[in-house]
Amino acid sequence: MNLSPLVTDLYQLTMMCAYLNSGKTGEAAFELFVRELPKNRNFLVFLGREEILKVVESLRFTPDDIDYLNSLKLFPDWFLDYLKEFEFTGTVYAFKDGELFFPYEPVVRVEAPIHQAQLLETLLMNQLHPLVLIASKAARVVAVSRGKTVVDFSLRRTHGTDAGLKVAKASYAVGFAGTSNVLAGKLYSVPVVGTVAHSFIMAFRSEKEAFRAYLETFPSHSVLIVDTYDPVRGIKRAIEVAKELGVELKGVRIDSGDLVELSKLAREILDREGFRSAKIILSGGLDEYKIDQVLSAGAPVDAFGVGTKVGTSSDAPYVDFVYKLVEVEGRPIMKTSTGKKMYPGRKQVYRDYSTWKDRLTLVTESSPGEPLLEKIVINGSPVISPLSLSRIRERFIELFSRVPAPLKNIYTQVNWLPEVSEGVLKLYKQLEEELLGG
Amino acid sequence: MNLSPLVTDLYQLTMMCAYLNSGKTGEAAFELFVRELPKNRNFLVFLGREEILKVVESLRFTPDDIDYLNSLKLFPDWFLDYLKEFEFTGTVYAFKDGELFFPYEPVVRVEAPIHQAQLLETLLMNQLHPLVLIASKAARVVAVSRGKTVVDFSLRRTHGTDAGLKVAKASYAVGFAGTSNVLAGKLYSVPVVGTVAHSFIMAFRSEKEAFRAYLETFPSHSVLIVDTYDPVRGIKRAIEVAKELGVELKGVRIDSGDLVELSKLAREILDREGFRSAKIILSGGLDEYKIDQVLSAGAPVDAFGVGTKVGTSSDAPYVDFVYKLVEVEGRPIMKTSTGKKMYPGRKQVYRDYSTWKDRLTLVTESSPGEPLLEKIVINGSPVISPLSLSRIRERFIELFSRVPAPLKNIYTQVNWLPEVSEGVLKLYKQLEEELLGG
Repeated sequence: MNLSPLVTDLYQLTMMCAYLNSGKTGEAAFELFVRELPKNRNFLVFLGREEILKVVESLRFTPDDIDYLNSLKLFPDWFLDYLKEFEFTGTVYAFKDGELFFPYEPVVRVEAPIHQAQLLETLLMNQLHPLVLIASKAARVVAVSRGKTVVDFSLRRTHGTDAGLKVAKASYAVGFAGTSNVLAGKLYSVPVVGTVAHSFIMAFRSEKEAFRAYLETFPSHSVLIVDTYDPVRGIKRAIEVAKELGVELKGVRIDSGDLVELSKLAREILDREGFRSAKIILSGGLDEYKIDQVLSAGAPVDAFGVGTKVGTSSDAPYVDFVYKLVEVEGRPIMKTSTGKKMYPGRKQVYRDYSTWKDRLTLVTESSPGEPLLEKIVINGSPVISPLSLSRIRERFIELFSRVPAPLKNIYTQVNWLPEVSEGVLKLYKQLEEELLGG
Repeated sequence: MNLSPLVTDLYQLTMMCAYLNSGKTGEAAFELFVRELPKNRNFLVFLGREEILKVVESLRFTPDDIDYLNSLKLFPDWFLDYLKEFEFTGTVYAFKDGELFFPYEPVVRVEAPIHQAQLLETLLMNQLHPLVLIASKAARVVAVSRGKTVVDFSLRRTHGTDAGLKVAKASYAVGFAGTSNVLAGKLYSVPVVGTVAHSFIMAFRSEKEAFRAYLETFPSHSVLIVDTYDPVRGIKRAIEVAKELGVELKGVRIDSGDLVELSKLAREILDREGFRSAKIILSGGLDEYKIDQVLSAGAPVDAFGVGTKVGTSSDAPYVDFVYKLVEVEGRPIMKTSTGKKMYPGRKQVYRDYSTWKDRLTLVTESSPGEPLLEKIVINGSPVISPLSLSRIRERFIELFSRVPAPLKNIYTQVNWLPEVSEGVLKLYKQLEEELLGG
């Protein structure tokens, strides 16, 4: 992904110009959080430290960018000159990758001169949004998969190349075993996986001829798709061809029909014919509900290939992230529109990992539990190296195994909110009175 | 966007290898279509000729790509050598940009040696999917907007940078007036627009001070957001400051509260105070339903800023595009799984623009009406220059004004299907019998 400071809303640049023009360049703090969870979600999963570092680093305007901005006949020359030299010099805090979060919990805090912190907003949100969206959806899939392998097959129906990469990354981070997306393999070292498509089978004069061509080419890697014509015949033909060629059959994929019945039948036939190690892979419109249903019905599945519904988080395709000013020049800030509650001041979140209860405090307060916001950028420079994706994944899997069952239940909604500290509440009330008074 | 042939599913590469290994490299035809429309859609809008040309051009493997593929220890050396020299040499047909389409109508046909046509699949779909998805959603917004200006404010909650660009492009193509996405302005010449955010207002000690700072910086471009505190007071303060500075007030933006009542009040106050040319811009969770409701209630709105719900097509966040093999080595192909109907053979779509009725034919049949699939790539080279985005937009607006009202009704679903020619039906029946027989 080529990030650019032009991946921004025009008003970020006009506001920046107006801040500078009016000498309003004091320190500000913005926090990124959600007021409520999307439909069907009991938690969200934070992911994106690496992207935050990239965003910070990418906030440099090229001569080309400046030419374009100049062509808008909107900005004064002094501002364009300023942009030529612009660098972000602020400090950024973020949750750890793979950490669960809940409403009102700031997962990122940016502290910088206000015009700088403002410029970060759009690109930061644009990059974190799909990661959090998909990690949160995919974690639900993992929650019901009872240790079975799940892989990402969504690339063709994601919202473009960046989305495709982020789906592969985010789903792997929460426990998927791999992706079909080859570029994600190259860029993020996500294991790449694949089977074979119906079109390959249909391209040959017969199913057996197609199986033969595939098994001859990949004698030790072949998962054959068996439902192009009749799935039961397909399984038998796959076995016949594997025997005929004397090669291993890694598995069979079933992409349509009654997945429960067909997988039982497939297992029976494969076992009977001596192909006990051949895996059964299911795909076709799967999501956490369908997977839970298939596994609850006792289907002897080894792996699921999930696509569109997870890759677009189709039941809840966005997270209502907001990036709110909480302090400027030492003065805590709050906005109180109907239905748009927020807590003022720079805050921290403490988690008690034995109960998974959180506490939202001011940064000046102390609390038991683990503080979740950590400094990752100081004066514009990274002060951490993000964990490798496989480490993030290991950590997530371990943590997730200890998350209370009600949070992981995909059918019932729980309202898991942080406890709000005395300090935050007091400040909230104080500002509320000032706003009502003013 | 850096397109790469690695933006693909692993199985496209393994199938390619198996096709080559078994000498199966005859001419094939694949068609891209949908079997059914997404929820709440009466039509889809095709967009993406430029992207198809870019995809075709981008199918070159870099030495780096080859090294990565080699590291998978999956592919034979001869295949990696082949990929080093790979170019797409096929022919591509596509609908015109901005053309409406319906179930079973191929909007793209790829004719190429089968291993090449197969490789195109994932990247082609990944690139066209968000364009079609968003153009189709945004056209519904345009359908209810009664000529009012609509602009795209969705960038922060789209699924990454590529999605953000494609949302800006697709929504502009169907009649939006602009986008907040500055990079889309630079890359696609979409007009960029913006107002000011609540955070800017809150950063100052008072609303008037903030308005002053903004109006002084942009005396002839300012749309002020007036609902940070009390919207009625906000409007009055905006007027006061504009008068005090003797500058124009381009407009006011209202982002929360009762948009109908507030816009009426705003219009009244602005007119009374002599700001008749100041526009009223509404935003905040808007989609086609909300816009229709606001306009039906007589709100005196000039423009709408729409964000997340359109930028993610939130009520239907994916289009179930399929790319199906329809012919190989001159032999028509069909697959008949339950619920997965398709028509075999290379096809054309003819449209009667006086009735908007379509006819699906074999390419060998003739028909009255305009043929919609046109050759855009021959032997791997573009044979057209895509229309400029502004021309696509003009053409769409003109065509869309003539689309029958039931199709544009956002509340009721119509089932608009092409008539299927004798030739297609005959071939369908013939292949059905063969499949049942086999």
